[in-house]
Amino acid sequence: MSAKFTPAKRVADQKQDVWSIINEAAAASPIQPIVNMGQGFFGYNPPQFIIDAAKSALDRVECNQYSPTKGRPRLKKAIADAYTPFFGRKLDPETEVTITTGANEGMLSAFMGFIEPGDEVIIFEPFFDQYISNIEMPGGVIRYVPMHPPPDGAERTSSAGNWTIDFEELEKAFNDKTKMIVLNSPHNPVGKVFSKEELTRIGELCLKHQTIILSDEVYDRLYYVPFTRIATLSPELAQITLTVGSAGKNFYATGWRVGYLIGPPHLIKYVAAAHTRICYSSVSPLQEAAAIGFEQADKVGFWDQAVKEMKGKMDRFCQVFDELNIPYSIPDGGYFVLANLAKVQLPDNYAFPDHVKNRPRDFRMAYFLIVELGVAAIPPTEFYTDERAHMAEDWLRFAVCKNDDVLEDAKERLRGLRKYMIGSA
Amino acid sequence: MSAKFTPAKRVADQKQDVWSIINEAAAASPIQPIVNMGQGFFGYNPPQFIIDAAKSALDRVECNQYSPTKGRPRLKKAIADAYTPFFGRKLDPETEVTITTGANEGMLSAFMGFIEPGDEVIIFEPFFDQYISNIEMPGGVIRYVPMHPPPDGAERTSSAGNWTIDFEELEKAFNDKTKMIVLNSPHNPVGKVFSKEELTRIGELCLKHQTIILSDEVYDRLYYVPFTRIATLSPELAQITLTVGSAGKNFYATGWRVGYLIGPPHLIKYVAAAHTRICYSSVSPLQEAAAIGFEQADKVGFWDQAVKEMKGKMDRFCQVFDELNIPYSIPDGGYFVLANLAKVQLPDNYAFPDHVKNRPRDFRMAYFLIVELGVAAIPPTEFYTDERAHMAEDWLRFAVCKNDDVLEDAKERLRGLRKYMIGSA
Ligand SMILES: Cc1ncc(COP(=O)(O)O)c(C=O)c1O
Ligand SMILES: Cc1ncc(COP(=O)(O)O)c(C=O)c1O
Repeated sequence: MSAKFTPAKRVADQKQDVWSIINEAAAASPIQPIVNMGQGFFGYNPPQFIIDAAKSALDRVECNQYSPTKGRPRLKKAIADAYTPFFGRKLDPETEVTITTGANEGMLSAFMGFIEPGDEVIIFEPFFDQYISNIEMPGGVIRYVPMHPPPDGAERTSSAGNWTIDFEELEKAFNDKTKMIVLNSPHNPVGKVFSKEELTRIGELCLKHQTIILSDEVYDRLYYVPFTRIATLSPELAQITLTVGSAGKNFYATGWRVGYLIGPPHLIKYVAAAHTRICYSSVSPLQEAAAIGFEQADKVGFWDQAVKEMKGKMDRFCQVFDELNIPYSIPDGGYFVLANLAKVQLPDNYAFPDHVKNRPRDFRMAYFLIVELGVAAIPPTEFYTDERAHMAEDWLRFAVCKNDDVLEDAKERLRGLRKYMIGSA
Repeated sequence: MSAKFTPAKRVADQKQDVWSIINEAAAASPIQPIVNMGQGFFGYNPPQFIIDAAKSALDRVECNQYSPTKGRPRLKKAIADAYTPFFGRKLDPETEVTITTGANEGMLSAFMGFIEPGDEVIIFEPFFDQYISNIEMPGGVIRYVPMHPPPDGAERTSSAGNWTIDFEELEKAFNDKTKMIVLNSPHNPVGKVFSKEELTRIGELCLKHQTIILSDEVYDRLYYVPFTRIATLSPELAQITLTVGSAGKNFYATGWRVGYLIGPPHLIKYVAAAHTRICYSSVSPLQEAAAIGFEQADKVGFWDQAVKEMKGKMDRFCQVFDELNIPYSIPDGGYFVLANLAKVQLPDNYAFPDHVKNRPRDFRMAYFLIVELGVAAIPPTEFYTDERAHMAEDWLRFAVCKNDDVLEDAKERLRGLRKYMIGSA
């Protein structure tokens, strides 16, 4: 093939990503079916009132055709109404809310709306992996700041809040070229909910350095400790913050691809402009269903039930780690839990395939769990730069947004770890 | 606001686009409701078997969660099977088909997959407007080549095939930096279906200059003259062509945002990689419904019926132009018709708003039709560079994908043009 058919650099790197490594290992495992606690999709359906809303939207002509590029007026209004109490002021659905194709394309739209080549964006490690390519697409340069695992993370279970930021490190990451910072709370994969104090300090730095805050709050309805939204801390912070949400995460429908951003008109305007150029408009009937979801969720008690259910799943699942004496970070929010498997001894000379052998220990552990126990989890070093991957190489991420019988099955399988634990007979 | 909150150049230009000008005029018109023949959305629902498929997908857990980034296996297979007869060889659903969030994001993915800053892309004028921002996003430079309207277009009705390319002009547009060319057949807004001879000549140039062909064939099921797909002309052309389709256009569901690309593995691979970075994955339940659509469409005679119905609408509507002696380009395909309103005399000193007054004549005509007759159509000079806008300033684009009673209403309103025609009493 001629050199003229070569791909652009932005896609040329086809290093195998964690999802395909894990999926391939899962498909090749002698234990079938695998219990998949890897990717964060729900193992059950959205609530019936939202499914019904989607079905009735499908019967309406205008719900099957192009929506306005910024989103269906009904959905923007439903979101503005739903978030007005949190924001403590009336949100304007026309200028302060815009709809995107999942939170993912929403964040890309924010980067495309503001990043010029060479502009810098600060993100914390570990990070949601799509941030990287989304920042690099418009030519952004990433400054990484680590979240530090609890120093005694290999010995004892403690709150995910014990993953901490070194504010000196953070301050050093800012400079004249800093255009944006990405926050994520509740955090994937750590499960941390940033405290009001932490957010206040981060906010001060952003105001000082005139930095746009992109606050990824897709797990905003799942928190088990008090949850603060940085945009609500002060009017000054509201002016520089874009808050990202996901109807897919909120309503157990990750495949619906309906996301949204909330923020001041001078920022939302350009996110919407970028979104128009990327996707034109987002999926109509499911926007309508999401609108009905936001309109009715409070009335039917859905949000409270969602928290209760997910916290129940978290407790149910983590119990196996307590049993095995495997330390973990007790999640403040979201549906991921990080367990520290330093005590698990992988057999010497175990036959790992090359693309796993050359990766940090967590990749080997994930592979081992899939092949020997039939449980898939995600190695979090994928969410670190190579330089800092060592920080997380003893941890694995488990998604608990699965049916209870699946969780019980996973637990039973994980009990098989006992014989590989250091100090076991 | 600090300079640090300025938007990126790629979105900073907020010149009012044609859609918002037309929509604003429509909302402000004294005649309400407007008959909207502007934007190309369907005025009726997808066929019932596809709506039913979507509803039953909503009941299945896995159809509401993330799909594989390249698309649901069932949809890729259904598309490979549906297109295998056209391509004359068995298409591989895993390597030769990829799913995107509408054709729009599919084309962006193609540009993102191959264009480096400074690479050139050839497109024909008039163009589908989203091409421009999609090419510019990765830093592509556009070379425009005009389609020439029929020289007697102001005097007599003739085939849309009479909009022609000057092959010398086309050849001159190629150079060392040419990376891609965009074709569109059936063409929006012209209604032209490129002939086998034209495509063969274009193909020769692309092979000579080693240029990737992005063939936008979203109206591929609506043609009224023989339709040729450039990818099928030779194995050499198949190797350099990406064919773009739209389940939204195929199944009367523009709001579903399911598109697809078909092409050789060495090209599809990078389109899929870019798509993953842009949207992650596309809407799951409607992918499933589209799969069922492709599986069943032939059996239930849907494709034949779609052609027959749309051609019927076209003939029904264009009859008013015959009646008024307004020349038009008889569409070879698609659902748009261009009428030449050179003979319509706009009253002197008519009070056009400034943002319309300063645009070419077709904008003034479109405004006049909305305000005086209550019919919205699209001024095609929006789909030209300023330099060549004069070529189309007597034409207006009408979308006929509307219910028959709407078409009759539009016709009745358009009869009001009679008193403005040159030579009328
Ligand atoms: C932190 C975080 N942000 C964003 C997303 C993407 O959300 P969506 O599915 O709405 O694109 C995810 C999905 O896993 C996530 O974990
Ligand atoms: C020529 C052309 N290409 C692509 C598209 C976009 O198709 P989709 O709605 O699938 O994104 C359109 C929509 O009008 C079009 O006219």
